[in-house]
Formats: sequence, structure tokens, C-alpha cells
Amino acid sequence: MEYVAPVKDMRFTLEHVAGLADLARLPGLENAEAETVAAVLEEAAKFAAGVLSPLNRGGDQHGAKAENGVVRTAPGFADAYKKFVEGGWNGMPFPEVLGGGSMPWAVTMAAQEMVQSANLSFSLCPLLTQGAIDAIIAHGTDEQKAMYLPKMVSGEWTGSMNLTEPQAGSDVGALKSKAVPVGDGTYRISGSKIFITYGEHDMAENIIHLVLARLPDAPPGTKGISLFIVPKVLVNKDGSPGKRNDLRVVSLEHKLGIHASPTCVMSYGDNGDCIGYLLGAENQGMRCMFTMMNNARLSVGCQGLAIAERAYQQALDYAEQRRQGRHPGMNAEQHVSIIEHADVRRTLMLMRSLTEACRGLIYLNAAAIDRSHHHPDEAERKASKALVELLTPLSKSWSTDIGCEVASMGVQIHGGMGFIEETGAAQHYRDARILPIYEGTNGIQAIDLVTRKLPLNGGETVKALFAQIAGVVAETATADEGFTTIHANLDAALKSLSKASQWIGGQLARNPETALAGATPYLRAFATTVGGWLLAKQALAAKAEITKGGTDPYFTAKIVSARLFADQVLTSVDGLCRSATDGSASLADVTPELLRA
Amino acid sequence: MEYVAPVKDMRFTLEHVAGLADLARLPGLENAEAETVAAVLEEAAKFAAGVLSPLNRGGDQHGAKAENGVVRTAPGFADAYKKFVEGGWNGMPFPEVLGGGSMPWAVTMAAQEMVQSANLSFSLCPLLTQGAIDAIIAHGTDEQKAMYLPKMVSGEWTGSMNLTEPQAGSDVGALKSKAVPVGDGTYRISGSKIFITYGEHDMAENIIHLVLARLPDAPPGTKGISLFIVPKVLVNKDGSPGKRNDLRVVSLEHKLGIHASPTCVMSYGDNGDCIGYLLGAENQGMRCMFTMMNNARLSVGCQGLAIAERAYQQALDYAEQRRQGRHPGMNAEQHVSIIEHADVRRTLMLMRSLTEACRGLIYLNAAAIDRSHHHPDEAERKASKALVELLTPLSKSWSTDIGCEVASMGVQIHGGMGFIEETGAAQHYRDARILPIYEGTNGIQAIDLVTRKLPLNGGETVKALFAQIAGVVAETATADEGFTTIHANLDAALKSLSKASQWIGGQLARNPETALAGATPYLRAFATTVGGWLLAKQALAAKAEITKGGTDPYFTAKIVSARLFADQVLTSVDGLCRSATDGSASLADVTPELLRA
Repeated sequence: MEYVAPVKDMRFTLEHVAGLADLARLPGLENAEAETVAAVLEEAAKFAAGVLSPLNRGGDQHGAKAENGVVRTAPGFADAYKKFVEGGWNGMPFPEVLGGGSMPWAVTMAAQEMVQSANLSFSLCPLLTQGAIDAIIAHGTDEQKAMYLPKMVSGEWTGSMNLTEPQAGSDVGALKSKAVPVGDGTYRISGSKIFITYGEHDMAENIIHLVLARLPDAPPGTKGISLFIVPKVLVNKDGSPGKRNDLRVVSLEHKLGIHASPTCVMSYGDNGDCIGYLLGAENQGMRCMFTMMNNARLSVGCQGLAIAERAYQQALDYAEQRRQGRHPGMNAEQHVSIIEHADVRRTLMLMRSLTEACRGLIYLNAAAIDRSHHHPDEAERKASKALVELLTPLSKSWSTDIGCEVASMGVQIHGGMGFIEETGAAQHYRDARILPIYEGTNGIQAIDLVTRKLPLNGGETVKALFAQIAGVVAETATADEGFTTIHANLDAALKSLSKASQWIGGQLARNPETALAGATPYLRAFATTVGGWLLAKQALAAKAEITKGGTDPYFTAKIVSARLFADQVLTSVDGLCRSATDGSASLADVTPELLRA
Repeated sequence: MEYVAPVKDMRFTLEHVAGLADLARLPGLENAEAETVAAVLEEAAKFAAGVLSPLNRGGDQHGAKAENGVVRTAPGFADAYKKFVEGGWNGMPFPEVLGGGSMPWAVTMAAQEMVQSANLSFSLCPLLTQGAIDAIIAHGTDEQKAMYLPKMVSGEWTGSMNLTEPQAGSDVGALKSKAVPVGDGTYRISGSKIFITYGEHDMAENIIHLVLARLPDAPPGTKGISLFIVPKVLVNKDGSPGKRNDLRVVSLEHKLGIHASPTCVMSYGDNGDCIGYLLGAENQGMRCMFTMMNNARLSVGCQGLAIAERAYQQALDYAEQRRQGRHPGMNAEQHVSIIEHADVRRTLMLMRSLTEACRGLIYLNAAAIDRSHHHPDEAERKASKALVELLTPLSKSWSTDIGCEVASMGVQIHGGMGFIEETGAAQHYRDARILPIYEGTNGIQAIDLVTRKLPLNGGETVKALFAQIAGVVAETATADEGFTTIHANLDAALKSLSKASQWIGGQLARNPETALAGATPYLRAFATTVGGWLLAKQALAAKAEITKGGTDPYFTAKIVSARLFADQVLTSVDGLCRSATDGSASLADVTPELLRA
């Protein structure tokens, strides 16, 4: 079945979690007034359902193919990309002066979610371009901006990010690619890169590679890395295409999923003539990379959400269609849809509430990016920036874990048919599995949360967030009886989380290994509590709509979703917190030798 | 890397959990004395590592192929199967009078785990044969036994189980295949079956299909189903091969995993001449199927354990080899193995303790089967039979969920390489995903636990098990300080589980939907507590070995494994119990309409 964008829930979340009305009042985001956003999302929904979703299954089966330095994407992809560019979708979050749409990241994220749900493999191409645009906006010279940005914002040219080398994955500082200045302001780049998403393809006329490399005599590690613009086709001063640069795709990886997204092994400077242009200052490459990282991590988190939504839709559809078993009292020849079975309904609602919780987190995170850029008040900008820092590892990590888990539940709903590739449920399961890995493994996100985000502003950022959650705990106390469990379980979760946070914060200075030992369960506890908070917040808003006379069953569904999350998911927080704080003693004993014993 | 059977842990578990020494004293199980078992397991380990493991990756890539009614298994499979038969592995648990090895199921399970770890796709063929043998032993006439069993026990002929039809998966009663008596004692079978594992292949000279079908005028539903022996090649009275029966493979499914195991669409009686022989009484097919079900479900649980073990070995190997990152104070050009990183070690030990907990459960369950058959005391046999009934849904469900989860952790340890098929970690992740589905989905296991197993013998079976767990809680209280967390967390888990069990038991009569609403988290809580108990029991045994002067670091590893399980996994039990008991209110509100809202 084809994807149908959940526009209603997206708009509800944008309104009640991201605060869209407030965003639209910020200078530079005036385009985001309600009617425009609604129209944009309806258009995006049509594009995702009508153009991208039908290519998803074929893309998986066909994959991208490399032959003699050319990568052919799956049938229909190049044409769909052309339509993507023509629709102006690529430039949505970028300033109008660059040809973009000046839309908030929160709204962009909703459109991005649609593209990702419809076709995860396709969505990676614009995602990489987006990252490259961010880097050039932040660190490029005026000349570089003028030369590359217009065609990248439009999407006519795409971008790629070249970090990883065989010996340098998470440890970026170990990379060995070289950049030698030749005296005319340009550099000669040489080296091999792996895992380069859309490093080569047939969907655009040029690819602007951003490549991390070392200058001669650069200091070792991350302090000796510089970032370079390395176009596939060199660009003449007048903007016309120049000669083909000395770089090539060597091969594509054979992957578990996202088959239609070419994951390239790239070689730069085989003939000693690969021309690169320094982006930002020498040896500041890591800093430049960090500029993009928050956005990229959030976008990957959004992919987790997107796969969860798609898996939910597919499972719901199957559960409605598939007839099997019966209610007590029915005769043996009668059958009900499997959605009538308690365990199936439980799983479906769990899938839905997990998905909605992720949507809340991702859109909130995106809105914080918008406020950090556009809020007129500096203190607000700073606080929003800090919130972005805090939420990003949660968005990336939790949403991608949930993406995998919900995709797995989707397979399970299908029974034996879920294991058969034709059904399509298995593709989501395979596609989702990269998400907890790339853009910083989820283990690294947990370390980031504990070591860098927890202590932000002396702990004030976390405290401020907890205060907001406590506010909703208080509100749910006085709401009607439908909120009893929500109130009790969110309250309990926040208390456990606060206690664990204090404990870990206290360990950080004295005994960092102890703090790190529990990083993974701590992140899960943190994100789960945030998810429960955002669902409770939306349930209160839905309740208000009902009180105002709203009769859409969607409002009831919001409340039920929050309650199911409270009694099925928030219940895990206390145990996770105990694992986070009590596990260091065992872990200290886990030596490499013991693991072999 | 090739699989290495964890013989040391298998033997330790057989000794301290399955009670191997006691089993060997039971009439009919005298072959299981310690030295023989040790020798058998060493041989099995060699066979698994040397013959089966090297075919696993190629089997995945090549798959089984159907062409004009012939199924060709992957290169090497037919030869390996020949060696499997020659080694006598197929007959291990069956009586010596039938040509078997008269080994306990507990020991057989260890050998079976090795075969499954080494090559899951291969292992399915003997598994299906085993089920068919069980059915013929239990329900066959003397003539049928004499005609089929010797060659099936030896493995020269294999078996298949034909239940599923397109409209009849979990709802077996909905099947439509027909069996018409022709007056000479035989039947003519017609119908289509799907998901038939090893329904056709080139590894044996004959395949004995067991087929569920309906007699004319049979009552509807499960009460009108009969079981038939339908040989691929009919067998003459003298045992020589007769004519080819009228049945054929139509096609193979294209699956997410276990590519080398042919999953067949079968057609019976295309030419009206498919001869079948009634097995057991008319309309008693479901009862016959249930005979096999406990064994089959336990074996599938063992597959979950087996995949977890394999994934652990592969991840441990990678974590030792892969160098990335450094300790504080090391310079930028130095690197450590990733096993040095806290999060990686935590994940590896978690994988290991989950695997060991499953091993305990599976072997305990198998030993209970042995006692239920061989114990001289009838009350003991009955109690053991009840324990088998209770443990089987836990073994099937929890071990297969753990198989998927540990395989996923294995992918994660590999980072980006985990997503690349060449690495092999992804194959385990794909292969494992069928396990929670087949032989009764895990949702069905949870319903079985709550509705049929919890009330067994008026709740006495559960009570007796909890008393055993309480015994280990008491023992850990007086053990040394390494057992503090184990004691506290097992005690807390048992208390939560007991309370939840009482509550659910109370709901069952009054309000079955309410009891069912929490079946899935309840099963998880139950199995987790049992897993924690069995690890604690082994940790106490390891402690005793150390006290006696044992210096093998394996003993320390057992204690650390139990402790890590206590503080990372047992901590989840209370929350799961709360989800199980508090979730019914939300679930009652989850209507199919609301899921669409």
C-alpha cells in the first residue's frame, strides 16, 4: 500500500508542541503563517504519496548499480528527483535570498518526514545536500557562497559528506586523506573514503563533495583536519561547468537495507589532479563538521520517526484486511479481522503512540533550532540553542531505536507474511537498521548526553526542561479521570529521572567511567520521559478541543495514545534509571578477558 | 569467523540447571553418563564448526532454488546432510530400538543448539523430521512405525509439516485441504499448502509429508481436521521405493532471512492421485499436532538462543579486532580495540548474559521433558509434564525475542560494517526475525501462558516454580557481597511477578479480556525473572567452584554475568508487571476506528 501523510497529526504536533503560531511571528519566519503551512504540507503529502512512495519497493529490489565509474539509480529515481527540484522542496528551510522558502525547520521537518516515510533511500540525497549547504552557509567565503549555494539550494546540484575512511569511523581524527596546497589558493586532494552516501549518481548535473583531509604537517587527531569543497565537475568563474575533477566512485556497498541509496567507496586524486578548495580555516574541519551535526542528527532521528509511521500504516492496513480467528461465540467458519484481537490492537496502539511521541520530540527539537536562530531576544536564543544541544542526542538515538522497534512490531503483525519480502514490511525492518548506526552511533549519543549535555550551563538546561515536564505533571493532576494514569506515571518517571540525573551528574566529575557505564539506559529513560511529557501535553490540548465541542475521534485517539504510552512505556523509566545508576559495579568487572572466558 | 561451540557453558548449564547427573540415572537415559555426554558434545562441536558453519554465509547468498518441481539447496548442503546422517546426529534423542541414541532431550538440545548456531537454515531440515518422527511414534500404527521410522530416525528420509494455507495461519481450523477415503484404507489428498519448510529438496531420497486435511462432512473448525502421512515417493510393502506421489512444489518464498531453507508452496493432488494414509484417528489431527508442538516450540526457542550465541561470538571477535578511539591520556595516533570502550563492553556482557539466561531456560525445559517421560515416579512425571507446559511458551517466546535483540546488538557493535552484508552480522539479524513468528507467534504464546498455563493444576505449577525461585533468593541472601544486587533484584522481581500473577489469575475467570490485555508484558516479566533465577543459580554454583579452589576465569564470568543481568535486565520486571496489570483500561478504549482516526 502507498504511504498517506498523517497531516492531521503533523499539524496538531506543530501547533501544540512546536508552537507554530509563535514561530511564524519570529523575524524571518513570516512565511510560516498557518494557511501557508497547511497548503505546503498538503502539497508535500501529495508529492510523497504520488511520486516517491510508489518507487520505494522497486528501489529496494533494483538498488543502485555502479558500472565503470557511473552510478545508475533505480528506475524512476532521477525523474522523481527532477520533480523534487522543480517543486522547490530542496530549498524549503533556506533563506529566500538564496532561492529558498524561508520556512521554519519545524515545518521543514514535517515535509522531510513525509519524504522519508515515502522513500527513505530517496530522502538521503537531499539530506546530504542540506548538510553541505549548511556548511557552506556557515563557513564559505562570499565567492564560494555565490558559486555553489544557488544551485545547491535549488537542488540542481547535490552534496556529499566525506568523513569516513576504513580506519576512521566514529574516530574521525584517525583519517589520513591528504590535501596539499599548490600555491594558487587551491589544494590537491588524495585519499579513499568509504560509506559516502550519494557520492555518485545520475540524478543531478553536479555533486559538490565536502571532504575532510589533512594538510601536510597538520597536528595529529581531530585538531589537524580541514574541510574542502571538491566538486565532481569544476565550476568556471562564470558558473558554467568546467572540467571533470580527478575523483571517482570505486564501488558500492552491498547493504542490509536502503538499497536504492548508493553507498559509495570514493577515490580522490588517483591521477594527482583532484582540485579542492578550503572551506573555513585550516585545521578547523572538525569545528565545521560540528556545525552540521545537530541538523544532520535531528534529520536522522526524523528518519526513525518516518519509518515508524510507515510501518504503522502498513501494519494497520494489514490488520484490517487480514481475517483470521474469531470472537468467543462465533462459529468456526466465521472470521474477524485480526485488528479485533486484543494483542494486535495493543501492538498497533503501542506503535502509534511511540511514533507520535517521537514526532513530538523531533518537531520540538526543530522548533528550538528555529528559535535559536530567529528569536529577537538573545537570552531566548541562547536557551533555545542549549535546548537543541540537549534534545539532539535524544532525537537521534531514541527515535532511531523506536524506528527499528516499531518496524519489527510491524513485521510481527503480519505473521508469516511479514517475513516474505513481497509484503514490504521486511523492507522497513531492513532499512531502519542503519539509523541507530550512522551520524554517530546511539552509544556515542548516550555518551554525548551524559558527558556534554547533562552539565550544560551548570545543569540549568536540564533543570529548565524538567520544570516544563513538571508543569504538565501538575496540569494532568487536575484534568479528568482519563488522566489519572498519565499523571501518576509521568510524575513517577520524572522523579526517577531527576534522581538518576543528579546521581550521574555527581559522578561525572569524580568518576566519569561510572557515569558512562549507565549512559545507554539513562538516555532511554530520559527520552521516554520526554516522549511521555509531549504526549501528555497533546492529550491535554485534545481534551481542550473536546471540551470546546470537537467531535473528531482523532482527539480521543490522542488521549488514548498518551494513556497507553503512560501505562506501557513510562512504566519502564524507573527500571532504566536503576540500571543506569546501579550498573557500574558489574561493568567495572567486565574485562575483555572475562568476555572470552 | 567460524562458530565455536561454547561447550564449557553448555556442560555447566547441563550440570547445574538441567541436573544431568540425575537424568542419567533415569531408566532409559543411561547413555547420558558424564563421559559419554562430554564426548558427544565435543564431536558435535567439531561437526558444527567444521562442516556446517562454513556453509552458512554461502547458503545465505546462494539460497535454495526451485526449478521445474526440483529444489536445489545451496552448494555443500546435500553433502553436509549426508555427513549429518552418517554421524548419527539425526537419531540422537530417539530410542535405540529405532536406531536412535537414547540421549536425553537436554543433551540433544545442546547438540541442536550447535547445529542451529552454525547454520540455522540447515538445522530446519532435521527439526522438521524430528517433529514428524514424534507424531508417528505417538500416533502411528505398528505398520506405519515399521515402514517410516527407521529411515526417518536415521535421517535418510526427512519429514515436513503441512499446516498453513493462505487463509489459515495461526487459525489452523480454517484450513480447506481435502482427504477423501477411497475404500482401500487410503485417502486421496488435495489442496495447497504454504510456508512448508523443506517441503522439497535434494538432500534425501524421500520426504515424508505430514498433511492436515478435512474429511468429507468433517465438522468445521479444528474439530474436523485429520492428519495424513503423504510420502513424496510411495513406499512398497518391502520398504523399496514405489511410484512418485501426486504432489509437487509450486514455488519458493523470497524471504528476509534463512535463505538456504526452502520455504515451499506445495500442491497436493493436481492429478487427483495423491495418496495419503491416516495418522491417528479421524478428526483428531489437532490433537496429533499438539503432541509435537511442545517439542517444536522448544526447538524454536533454542534457535533464538543459538542465534544469540552466534551473534555474540561474532561481535566479540569484531570488538577485539577493530581498533578505534583511545583511552584518556593516549595520543591521537594511538588506538585501542573497541572492546576497551565501556559501552561496547556493557553491550557484549549484556548479550552474553541474555544468551546464558536463555540457555538455562531451554535446557531446563528440555530436562523437564526427559523427566516427564522417564521418571519412575508418576507424580514426578506429572509435575514435570506440567512444568514443560508452563515453560514452553516462555522458552519459545522469550528466547526468540532475545535472539532478535542480541542479533541487533551484534549489528550495532559492528558500527557501519554491521550494515554491510559481507560482514555477516546482518545475516543473523535477518535470519532471527522469523523466530518470533513461526510455531505460534509470540503473541499467541503469551495468550497461551495466561489462559492455559497460569491456571494449570489450580495454579500449583506456577506456585511450585516460584517456590524454587524463592529458594535461590534465600541462598543468595547469605552468599558473599558479590551477590547483593542479585539477591535484591531477584527478590524484587519475584515479588512483582507474584503479585501480577495473582492479579491476572483473578481476572481470568471474571474478565478474560482484561487478563489478556497484559499478556505480552506479563510473559516478558515472567521469563526475565526465570532467566535471572537460573543465572543466579549458576552463579552460586560457580561461587562454590571458586571456593573449592577453581581458578578458571569462566567461574568469575558466570557471577559477573548474573550480576549484570540483575542490574540491567531484572530491573525491568516491575515496570513490565505494572504494564501487564494496568494496561487494560487503555486497551479497552483502543477500537479499530480509533486506530484509523
